[in-house]
Amino acid sequence: MTNGEPTQEPVQRGLRTGRLEAFSDGVFAIAITLLVLDIALPATAAKHLLRSLGDLWPSYVAYVASFGTIGALWLGHNVITEYLDRVDAVFIRINLLLLLFVAFLPFPTRIVADYISEQSPERVAVTFYGVTFLLAATLLLVLWRYAVRRRLVRPDMNDEEIDLLTQRLTPGLGGYLVLIVAGLFIPIVAVIGYLAVAIYYIVPSRGLTRLIRRKLHRPQRS
Amino acid sequence: MTNGEPTQEPVQRGLRTGRLEAFSDGVFAIAITLLVLDIALPATAAKHLLRSLGDLWPSYVAYVASFGTIGALWLGHNVITEYLDRVDAVFIRINLLLLLFVAFLPFPTRIVADYISEQSPERVAVTFYGVTFLLAATLLLVLWRYAVRRRLVRPDMNDEEIDLLTQRLTPGLGGYLVLIVAGLFIPIVAVIGYLAVAIYYIVPSRGLTRLIRRKLHRPQRS
Amino acid sequence: MTNGEPTQEPVQRGLRTGRLEAFSDGVFAIAITLLVLDIALPATAAKHLLRSLGDLWPSYVAYVASFGTIGALWLGHNVITEYLDRVDAVFIRINLLLLLFVAFLPFPTRIVADYISEQSPERVAVTFYGVTFLLAATLLLVLWRYAVRRRLVRPDMNDEEIDLLTQRLTPGLGGYLVLIVAGLFIPIVAVIGYLAVAIYYIVPSRGLTRLIRRKLHRPQRS
Amino acid sequence: MTNGEPTQEPVQRGLRTGRLEAFSDGVFAIAITLLVLDIALPATAAKHLLRSLGDLWPSYVAYVASFGTIGALWLGHNVITEYLDRVDAVFIRINLLLLLFVAFLPFPTRIVADYISEQSPERVAVTFYGVTFLLAATLLLVLWRYAVRRRLVRPDMNDEEIDLLTQRLTPGLGGYLVLIVAGLFIPIVAVIGYLAVAIYYIVPSRGLTRLIRRKLHRPQRS
Repeated sequence: MTNGEPTQEPVQRGLRTGRLEAFSDGVFAIAITLLVLDIALPATAAKHLLRSLGDLWPSYVAYVASFGTIGALWLGHNVITEYLDRVDAVFIRINLLLLLFVAFLPFPTRIVADYISEQSPERVAVTFYGVTFLLAATLLLVLWRYAVRRRLVRPDMNDEEIDLLTQRLTPGLGGYLVLIVAGLFIPIVAVIGYLAVAIYYIVPSRGLTRLIRRKLHRPQRS
Repeated sequence: MTNGEPTQEPVQRGLRTGRLEAFSDGVFAIAITLLVLDIALPATAAKHLLRSLGDLWPSYVAYVASFGTIGALWLGHNVITEYLDRVDAVFIRINLLLLLFVAFLPFPTRIVADYISEQSPERVAVTFYGVTFLLAATLLLVLWRYAVRRRLVRPDMNDEEIDLLTQRLTPGLGGYLVLIVAGLFIPIVAVIGYLAVAIYYIVPSRGLTRLIRRKLHRPQRS
Repeated sequence: MTNGEPTQEPVQRGLRTGRLEAFSDGVFAIAITLLVLDIALPATAAKHLLRSLGDLWPSYVAYVASFGTIGALWLGHNVITEYLDRVDAVFIRINLLLLLFVAFLPFPTRIVADYISEQSPERVAVTFYGVTFLLAATLLLVLWRYAVRRRLVRPDMNDEEIDLLTQRLTPGLGGYLVLIVAGLFIPIVAVIGYLAVAIYYIVPSRGLTRLIRRKLHRPQRS
Repeated sequence: MTNGEPTQEPVQRGLRTGRLEAFSDGVFAIAITLLVLDIALPATAAKHLLRSLGDLWPSYVAYVASFGTIGALWLGHNVITEYLDRVDAVFIRINLLLLLFVAFLPFPTRIVADYISEQSPERVAVTFYGVTFLLAATLLLVLWRYAVRRRLVRPDMNDEEIDLLTQRLTPGLGGYLVLIVAGLFIPIVAVIGYLAVAIYYIVPSRGLTRLIRRKLHRPQRS
């Protein structure tokens, strides 16, 4: 019976998305919360604690920029999986690759926090930071484009809706490229730029909000 | 068909709350569990381990106060999302901002634990701690008030019920302001005060319990 | 209408257990995984890495004992919430107190790992470790007894079934008391004993397995 | 009534798998995300940050190999629990033992990252790493074979399907044995080999994909 009816609805779903979402949410939530471990006072801070806390500003900026970026990636991931009808094995692999870079982000964040206020290595630190962001954002777009090409998206989505999300996910990549180059000249501007890109992704676009509403006509998955 | 019937029920729900809750629960749970990493013995503890463990009392107090505060914020977040009919894109952004401060809390906790028993920098440490609490609690209230103003709450909630939760979330802010000032004079009193505010939030109020019961007449979301 | 029918079924449920379980699972999972961070080689390990890895045996024993204990507490928590019909506000508070000790466990684990092989402070370390275990296990029993006394358990549970779970959760406390005393004389025996208690809790009892089967006659929550 | 009808459907299910999956997902996600904490620059890195970041290549290789392995174990765990009709108490114990090794993996990963580029202790480090992988992969196979032997798998699975998953989980063990021996001679080859085994597990096999599709004919568990 099971292999006699290969075209019926549950077959199309591929793998369940529930545990993929749970595992991904876990990695996003842990990576975003581990960022705080990299904010540390030097051992000599006791004497001038207020000034020492102030001197940590690069750590705070890096914390907020990385928090915003991981938050934006999580939000994008969230929207993509909402659009999906099913996932396949390649999708899971691309998703693992995306999570590999998400989980890696606390390390370049720490590098930026440690070296942004120093003269010589700040360029290297900020470039390393930006490249990791660029790779993670690219993989999120790859994840989405793969889902579209392999028709994993819900059948009731029309082309206009799909294009709108693609357009939404793409310009950030250009932004990252510009900021990586800018960071070679004025590193701190690049860090603030990364925060701006994160805010751009987080701020709701009208078109997308409209799409999400339509999407909710289908019965809710848990 | 989808845009021809904009007033039907699923459209009103906005985004699914499931993954927002899962991600938020993750951040709360991780932040509350990372607190223990900041309790550390000095390298010279071996000789008088019992005394060294006793000397860590500021770490224990800070651990309990922060654990209680994150627990209280989680509980408040829990109640708010229970009341919601749907979330919108701005709600998600305010929620990310709240989580930014929740995930940050282990850092001021470590600062308080390290400097509360020292003379000079304890005022700075306790103020830094209190301001973070105040910001997190304020954002929780902002989240709730935004949800009320934008009518994201369930339609069967009446004004009395909404006011009761608002009244419940508000006085803690005044408490934090008083304690921040008190901490400038007697730091340790402020830390114990923060624990007291957390207990106040956690202890059930009669009115709220009654409300929660009523709320459960609706079919359970998972 | 909502307050005119106070006796109907949803009212009795109190708060939803879903997020309480998700948050608790998160804290248990994080605390159990953070244990590994406390296993660390000394800086001088490079020369004789194999011997240095062997010299870490107290860390491995403490890791396994704590992992087993947190695993056993999670399992007990799991069984208790399975039995519940609903939770109330006090239950949530006791649960937060239990999680406070669960999340604290990585610290005494580190203390035991660091000092078990040294002469003088090992007694203090092992006692500190055992007392934390005792408090966590006691709170788990308090959680269960509170749920029974306040009739939060499912109405179709009979007294025999409730007694069986109570009997299952109780003897470990006596075991911890004996081991705390034993640890004052032969510390390493106590650590191995804590592992044995964890295994006792994890190993399935016949009576309990039978109960769990019966319990599953009700429709599945979540 | 409950014990008068022991053969009806819910009784066969044993324990709910929901919280076992949630707890396991949590441990997998946390262990995979903690790996990044072990990537650290030496204190002298400021002068030649780019070179210092390059010198960390063993950390990156170890990070990717461990991330891939935990990802593969999670994927295998995912497939196994998908096949299950119910779990029993022994299954839960074996699962805890598997998680014990999964949660342990960040430690050997750190050892490999620290010592792979040094002459003498690299053999020990790589062997320690490989043995942990072998034990975790073996436990995953034990978990599956136990589920098959105790007839915990879904009744509509036929023998061919079960054999296919067994064949899929088995050869990696041989791969680990070969790599552990190879690591005694050329350590870095073994580390790259571990990454290759992880990719082998992650890359979808045709037979398995077909099976997973069939499996989805049953109603979805949440």
